[in-house]
Amino acid sequence: MSANLPIVGAIEAGGTKFVCAVGRGSKSDLLETDEFPTGSDPQAVIGKVVDWLKSREARFGTLPAIGIASFGPVDLDPKSPTYGYITTTPKEGWKNTDIVGAVRRAFPGRAIGFDTDVNGAALGELRWGYARGLEDFIYVTVGTGIGGGGFARGRPLHGLVHPEMGHIPLPPVGDDPFPGNCRIHGRCWEGFCAGPAIERRAGMPGKMIPADHPVWELTTRSMAQALLTLTYVLSPRRIIIGGSVRKAGRLGEDAFFAMIRRHFHELNNGYISSPALSPEGLERYIVPPELGDAAGICGAVALGQDALRAGG
Amino acid sequence: MSANLPIVGAIEAGGTKFVCAVGRGSKSDLLETDEFPTGSDPQAVIGKVVDWLKSREARFGTLPAIGIASFGPVDLDPKSPTYGYITTTPKEGWKNTDIVGAVRRAFPGRAIGFDTDVNGAALGELRWGYARGLEDFIYVTVGTGIGGGGFARGRPLHGLVHPEMGHIPLPPVGDDPFPGNCRIHGRCWEGFCAGPAIERRAGMPGKMIPADHPVWELTTRSMAQALLTLTYVLSPRRIIIGGSVRKAGRLGEDAFFAMIRRHFHELNNGYISSPALSPEGLERYIVPPELGDAAGICGAVALGQDALRAGG
Repeated sequence: MSANLPIVGAIEAGGTKFVCAVGRGSKSDLLETDEFPTGSDPQAVIGKVVDWLKSREARFGTLPAIGIASFGPVDLDPKSPTYGYITTTPKEGWKNTDIVGAVRRAFPGRAIGFDTDVNGAALGELRWGYARGLEDFIYVTVGTGIGGGGFARGRPLHGLVHPEMGHIPLPPVGDDPFPGNCRIHGRCWEGFCAGPAIERRAGMPGKMIPADHPVWELTTRSMAQALLTLTYVLSPRRIIIGGSVRKAGRLGEDAFFAMIRRHFHELNNGYISSPALSPEGLERYIVPPELGDAAGICGAVALGQDALRAGG
Repeated sequence: MSANLPIVGAIEAGGTKFVCAVGRGSKSDLLETDEFPTGSDPQAVIGKVVDWLKSREARFGTLPAIGIASFGPVDLDPKSPTYGYITTTPKEGWKNTDIVGAVRRAFPGRAIGFDTDVNGAALGELRWGYARGLEDFIYVTVGTGIGGGGFARGRPLHGLVHPEMGHIPLPPVGDDPFPGNCRIHGRCWEGFCAGPAIERRAGMPGKMIPADHPVWELTTRSMAQALLTLTYVLSPRRIIIGGSVRKAGRLGEDAFFAMIRRHFHELNNGYISSPALSPEGLERYIVPPELGDAAGICGAVALGQDALRAGG
């Protein structure tokens, strides 16, 4: 289904690793991929990615566009002097990194697409995954941190900066005394549900947590509180959850999602009455990405193609 | 500035009263207004509004369009068989009321605009108030209940149904034992900050609560938690707060907003770094409606004009 789409370059800039690809579409249409550790020297890793893409051009021809989906915060305002920068990140070495500029200088004249990592993954799912045909949906990644992006009325969520959904305040579950693990906010979504919070509560690596450990009940309850908040604020037609935490070690992905859906149903308490939010509807409302862990890099391909189509 | 805009009919359907108007624009361009109690008989009050608008036509000529901004939940999906209905409201007598159909039958052939009451007020502020020129902003009304609407990337927030921001879960402030006043969710935004919650906490009517009563500190802290959530989810460029609670009785509107801004700044804790969220920036970021209590009816005028422009 991607046969008529152009072959472009794609960069998924994550906090742990950079994934790069040359492709024209979804997972099966990625011609080549590779990855490099993010590290603390932006010029070094961006240089490796640029070299990798240039060497692919010898094989696949000039890449007319490159899509970049990046960790943030990033500056998405095309009128801003720091458009295309990773701005105030606490990540060592990365503050004020002109990632779009570096790629543009290496590939002059090409169309460059740019958005957050999560809006990129959301675009991947919109084009080739579970968000096909949806104007309003959310993509959340739950891993070392939590980030959220998505589309409202068919356009990616930008605004003052861009969404930082992972840091919404959340109530504790019952009288749970856990102070939350977020350095900045304590008890926010990330402070309750990101991988490090789960491991701190359980006192063991995520993969070792037994399926019947109470931390799963607490985590999925907090996840449901956060997703209910997103539903009440944005009224999305679907919520897609990517990232490593969803695999839930010994509990397993299916059980993890089933617990989230059960809590969501209880917390909504019939308030928003929609077939999509019934117990059966929720099986299609809260889902993992159809593209799995490739949602981000496929989204970067789509960002490149969209920039090419927009002429920029 | 509204001189070139057409004169249309407007209906603001609220849970307590229906406001109707004939006008071409902002407050000073409303030619006539009137209001009727909502009551529990939809046909009765809609009949009064229709009669009122028809009698205005004798003076101002045929109204080419009528805008309706309604309490909800409402069905906003033009493809739905119940488009234009107030659907599952707990309000006595109002469940499954075809408000758009009733107005359409009384005024055949006219353009009818329809949205939620808060999206209507948001549109009023976008056209003639503090949201002028903003693609991404939120309008919240805090009164007997709490509702939120707004625009993302220039389009009103719709989706699966429409936002129900007033019911997002919120943490308690510190170890505050108040169980929350929401019949459905207990401790949600409405359960902490709507008028009845404030009065229940204070044990007296809102207008009598002294300016130094601790309920104001608790309420404005919860308000800030909710607004921070909206900022993290949607990244709006401004948040406008209408409704009666903002006037804050003996505390006063200015002090109420100042307290919310102070808490917001503390809770963000520097996480989103933007001049708009600095103490000075927040004076323009969290604001009352420029149109005051007329935001809703002016928005209904704009809904009518937009429907006319869209041809339907």
